[in-house]
Amino acid sequence: MKKIALLGATGSIGEQTLDVMRQHTEEFSLFALAFGSNTEKAIPMIREFEPAVVVTGNEKSREEVRKATNHSNILIGEEGLKAASTASEVDVLVNAVMGSVGLPATLEAIKARKRIAIANKETLVTAGHIVMAEAEKYNTPLIPVDSEHSAIFQALNGERMEDVRRLIITASGGSFRDKTREQLQGVKVKDALNHPNWSMGAKITIDSASMMNKGLEVIEAHWLFNMPYEKIHVLLHRESVIHSLVEFKDRSVMAQLGSPDMKVPIQYALTYPDRMDLSNTDSLELEEFSQLNFSKMDLDRFRCLKLAFDAGKAGGSMPTVLNAANEQAVAMFLEEKISFLEIESLVEKSLTEHNSISEPSLSDIIEIDKETRKRVERYVK
Amino acid sequence: MKKIALLGATGSIGEQTLDVMRQHTEEFSLFALAFGSNTEKAIPMIREFEPAVVVTGNEKSREEVRKATNHSNILIGEEGLKAASTASEVDVLVNAVMGSVGLPATLEAIKARKRIAIANKETLVTAGHIVMAEAEKYNTPLIPVDSEHSAIFQALNGERMEDVRRLIITASGGSFRDKTREQLQGVKVKDALNHPNWSMGAKITIDSASMMNKGLEVIEAHWLFNMPYEKIHVLLHRESVIHSLVEFKDRSVMAQLGSPDMKVPIQYALTYPDRMDLSNTDSLELEEFSQLNFSKMDLDRFRCLKLAFDAGKAGGSMPTVLNAANEQAVAMFLEEKISFLEIESLVEKSLTEHNSISEPSLSDIIEIDKETRKRVERYVK
Repeated sequence: MKKIALLGATGSIGEQTLDVMRQHTEEFSLFALAFGSNTEKAIPMIREFEPAVVVTGNEKSREEVRKATNHSNILIGEEGLKAASTASEVDVLVNAVMGSVGLPATLEAIKARKRIAIANKETLVTAGHIVMAEAEKYNTPLIPVDSEHSAIFQALNGERMEDVRRLIITASGGSFRDKTREQLQGVKVKDALNHPNWSMGAKITIDSASMMNKGLEVIEAHWLFNMPYEKIHVLLHRESVIHSLVEFKDRSVMAQLGSPDMKVPIQYALTYPDRMDLSNTDSLELEEFSQLNFSKMDLDRFRCLKLAFDAGKAGGSMPTVLNAANEQAVAMFLEEKISFLEIESLVEKSLTEHNSISEPSLSDIIEIDKETRKRVERYVK
Repeated sequence: MKKIALLGATGSIGEQTLDVMRQHTEEFSLFALAFGSNTEKAIPMIREFEPAVVVTGNEKSREEVRKATNHSNILIGEEGLKAASTASEVDVLVNAVMGSVGLPATLEAIKARKRIAIANKETLVTAGHIVMAEAEKYNTPLIPVDSEHSAIFQALNGERMEDVRRLIITASGGSFRDKTREQLQGVKVKDALNHPNWSMGAKITIDSASMMNKGLEVIEAHWLFNMPYEKIHVLLHRESVIHSLVEFKDRSVMAQLGSPDMKVPIQYALTYPDRMDLSNTDSLELEEFSQLNFSKMDLDRFRCLKLAFDAGKAGGSMPTVLNAANEQAVAMFLEEKISFLEIESLVEKSLTEHNSISEPSLSDIIEIDKETRKRVERYVK
């Protein structure tokens, strides 16, 4: 029986992690459940899974949970996340919180040598240099949950990193893939939220439309697989059937394919190197697709991807600025305060005006993250 | 330095094995070279690679080699193949001979615990039950060279066999894939020899057109991966870019892709589990393909595949009859003695009229092989 600490239980990855656990009650139990403030979703989860520890984002949520469940061990905030992640009972930490709040808990879990299923982008995008150095120092496995990184991780199974020639990350192109830059001028929030293949949260769906999501994935892949940016390619592949590929130096290419169902990579992160049945997930029938399409990624068309490659290559605190500026800009786009194309111009302006710090500390990162968000707000006023 | 015994040096796989070795002279040396009678090709090879042992198919070839090269250690026939394959110096046996002549040498090499790169279909199709039992007994690795089986082998790297849900073997469809059965009536030898993706020998190109090649591969996969026929699927995939796939029980699908170049699986069989550079092979650029197509395999349209599945499931000596009848029929088609569609009807008739033996011995197999060929000849007269 593997005991799991799940951070970010009420988000999309969190809910699907619980779905996976429901299928294998004899294999997994929930030791700790952490969420922010969505008590409406969290309370039924706590009743169903009866975790020993609950962590909430604030006092108000704690009180609501206490009243509804009578739970006797409810912690709060960052210290709560750390305690839940490093408890001796925990076998696997699934870190699916949004934003930088997940980072300190990840670092503590690395030191405690917990297996970490990592679904928190900020951890690697902004602090990849810190996280990976610690993971190496403590020999702690970081298993990616994102479908692209899971695909690469699976394709690397049994292989030597020195034999890799390049990583090829596929991109569906998002909701606006068939629009020219001119046609992007007047797009609306509801158009952007209409992703062709995957059902995801609002922020990540906008990031898919702008291709910033793929840019953040490139930076994550750089850290996770210790791969220079020159060896990371992005390929447009509308159907999202091939989740990503690895080319080896003998020109053999290994790929992972499947239906667009996040339960597959989530479960793999829990069961690796073994696999378990996942019976309510569709089997991939390539006959039914009949055709898979591929095309070259156009970095002029998808400016956010270019900005991400540039920020990644520049390194230091630039990826933190990229991520923070993008989050702020996307929030303002969702509030209809700015247009879709202003997302990229705000990110670009933020990067241009930032004086990069090399090897930023955690507190540098948190500081720069805050400053950048404020600056983006000011740009718009 | 790995020392290699290469059986079938003058065939297509043999020549490409030497191409691979030329690229890595510091890694591989040729200990033994075996061929049948093509001295025109073999003599320059012997001059270039200077193997310690040469094996020829007959006395005449031996004399020609001796005169041309002054080589002092030239063996003949089956005993020669066995000696070359089991010599203490040999690290890897590449068995790329055509027909059942390769079988005794493979069995001896298994007992001598040599790594075997297996490119000889008959070994597994007709004697899979004997070969795999011996390989298990002596814990000898059999590494497939065929692109489809190599793809499956690579996709299984780091995985547990118990986690496999099914193998998916891709088929280009061969030269006649777009023809109906009616249109197959009058097809000519030269049309059949015009394979769309791969450049191969005449026999295997005809087998691709009739889909018997895929049928033999299904039987090989059954033995090589210990997989019931119900878990082996065949998928039409025109472009031959995805060389084959494995679906696991979590519905994750791993695939191996690449340019249609046999040097990749040949080299992999030599270097496994590591990889080496293979610089004069094209890198796969999916952008350039733009589109990959898939469709369901129609077992009525491709009768030979159906016959192969049936013979495989029936087991015993049926696969030997399938293979022998097909070889004889293809030879007669190439001599323009029979029509293309008569290949399948001769195979079917042979299977129907055969009284199958379960667990046939090597001598049973050789006997049934001979009888079947004669019978097919008689059917036509």
